[in-house]
Amino acid sequence: MTGFAVVGADHLHVFSIVAGLVGAGARPVAHAELGDLVAGYASWQAGSEARTYDDILDSDDVDLVVTVGVPAERADVAIAAIEAGKHVVSAKPGVTTRSSLDRLRGVLAGRPGRPWTVLFTERFENRAVARAVKMAREGAIGEVVHVIGTGPHTLGADSRPEWFWDPARSGGILVDLASHQIDQFVALCGTDVLGGGVEVASARVGNVSCPDHPAMQDVGSLTLLAPGAVGDHRVDLLSPSGLPTWGDVRLVVIGTEGTLEARANVDVAGADGGEHLILTDQTGVRRVDVSSDPVTWAVDLLADVDDGGERLMTQDHVLTVCDLALRAQEQASSWGIS
Amino acid sequence: MTGFAVVGADHLHVFSIVAGLVGAGARPVAHAELGDLVAGYASWQAGSEARTYDDILDSDDVDLVVTVGVPAERADVAIAAIEAGKHVVSAKPGVTTRSSLDRLRGVLAGRPGRPWTVLFTERFENRAVARAVKMAREGAIGEVVHVIGTGPHTLGADSRPEWFWDPARSGGILVDLASHQIDQFVALCGTDVLGGGVEVASARVGNVSCPDHPAMQDVGSLTLLAPGAVGDHRVDLLSPSGLPTWGDVRLVVIGTEGTLEARANVDVAGADGGEHLILTDQTGVRRVDVSSDPVTWAVDLLADVDDGGERLMTQDHVLTVCDLALRAQEQASSWGIS
Repeated sequence: MTGFAVVGADHLHVFSIVAGLVGAGARPVAHAELGDLVAGYASWQAGSEARTYDDILDSDDVDLVVTVGVPAERADVAIAAIEAGKHVVSAKPGVTTRSSLDRLRGVLAGRPGRPWTVLFTERFENRAVARAVKMAREGAIGEVVHVIGTGPHTLGADSRPEWFWDPARSGGILVDLASHQIDQFVALCGTDVLGGGVEVASARVGNVSCPDHPAMQDVGSLTLLAPGAVGDHRVDLLSPSGLPTWGDVRLVVIGTEGTLEARANVDVAGADGGEHLILTDQTGVRRVDVSSDPVTWAVDLLADVDDGGERLMTQDHVLTVCDLALRAQEQASSWGIS
Repeated sequence: MTGFAVVGADHLHVFSIVAGLVGAGARPVAHAELGDLVAGYASWQAGSEARTYDDILDSDDVDLVVTVGVPAERADVAIAAIEAGKHVVSAKPGVTTRSSLDRLRGVLAGRPGRPWTVLFTERFENRAVARAVKMAREGAIGEVVHVIGTGPHTLGADSRPEWFWDPARSGGILVDLASHQIDQFVALCGTDVLGGGVEVASARVGNVSCPDHPAMQDVGSLTLLAPGAVGDHRVDLLSPSGLPTWGDVRLVVIGTEGTLEARANVDVAGADGGEHLILTDQTGVRRVDVSSDPVTWAVDLLADVDDGGERLMTQDHVLTVCDLALRAQEQASSWGIS
């Protein structure tokens, strides 16, 4: 049975990731650096033991390190774990600087499988987005021509930690949020584009609603190019408070023979619930029922840890997505005409 | 009573434009160069007389020239009419080359009002799009931050005229189709941006489904920038045949305090009919009923012809939109990574 340790928890994503792993049969062994969440975590996962990170790195009963700390600190956690021969699953973003990505590439070189996983939950935990990608890859809409991916979020200013307001610690809005959209675009384009087949054509970031935090980025966009395909993506922290969820996340895929539209969390002024998928093709318009699709990221991840496989995604996919997110952030110009 | 003449009719838009004008009280006086549509037109508008264009230019009973000919020929029709002291209403695109636009600017210089109108029907004939723009301008969603405008169309290869396949005659897909999205973005940004306040950040065109017509452009995108706002736009000729209309045209406007989404022609897998508008703001999500909004373009146009006003739009708006469409087309790179 795979044993895991949680190292760093500055985001509530820790609960969904751990719940997934435990549900798939992994054993919570240890935890470190959980900050204010330590008491809640320790009572929730009573079998998990407080250890230092150094002890965790030396622990034979820890196969997998889960890191959900401050984004800028996750890469160092991951690098140390990989150097110690362990697997890592990181909340997104997995890495916030180019130098950290280079160091990650270094420690990953020669290691089989996918020691470093970044969990792009907007696809791996959403049945509508996952199915849209799967159907597009299987040719349900012909060749993929254009993708529009939008990831609006609630600002939630009152409940945000200090790092949230500092792009140097969050990675910036494109690294922090748009990595989901980049993951989806890369997945839609197929494995041929991994390792350099996708380009960042342009990117922008801005601050339109947070005057008290001048460095903050609350809106961002980027255009990605692949052979035969263009992807226009937007993320923001502008979800209106009247929206009954944190964000009206959409993925629209235009193919030569049809279109797919995933409405991940809400179908505004439409059907109830989340995970909506609408297919329009030569035969008509219909909703695709994804409600019984299994969410398999944790099962796949644990199988990959066990045998060095790449069921969930490849190491190359993780590196490609993170590289593109950093490129977009690095070359982002200011929002609109300044 | 305003008398009008139709000069050139290579697109069925002629029927909707003439129906609008007649409905608003204008009188069909003459027609020229209607091609295959002449018999149908003459029997429909029995009061209209066949004349040469030279005669029409000399006719005192013609105040307004309507041109719906081959796109590349519309500017010359308009220039001659304006030089003859008449008003012009053109189907979009009104102009397909930079040199024609420069000549139009020349003949318009010093003329009051708006002698040259290009009718951007996706806004002026669609209540949902029109109301979205109006509400955004009135501050219903705070400051406009991001716009996504998509104009997919049915290819309809069997019923297209020869010029349709030749970008030199259609103007190219950004000039021909995206001028609607540019019109909407410029209108959303307000009159302050007219005459140079909007920039084309990037543009792309491609041919993904018409191998028999190598020069054809069946997909295009462009990003526009304005102070504080970014607009990402896509047009295509890829609407799936199973869609119950010619295109799932959308306009999504993200503001600092809410979002507006117009689904112009169809609410896929949703409510019946066209002209859907969904507002999400601080108080909730709701559909805005636009069904009783009047469509006033023809009434406004005739009043403008009558008194030199600019109710429908300003001359500066027309010139700004056409200039941006040409810029986008001129600087368009190839689709995706080639």
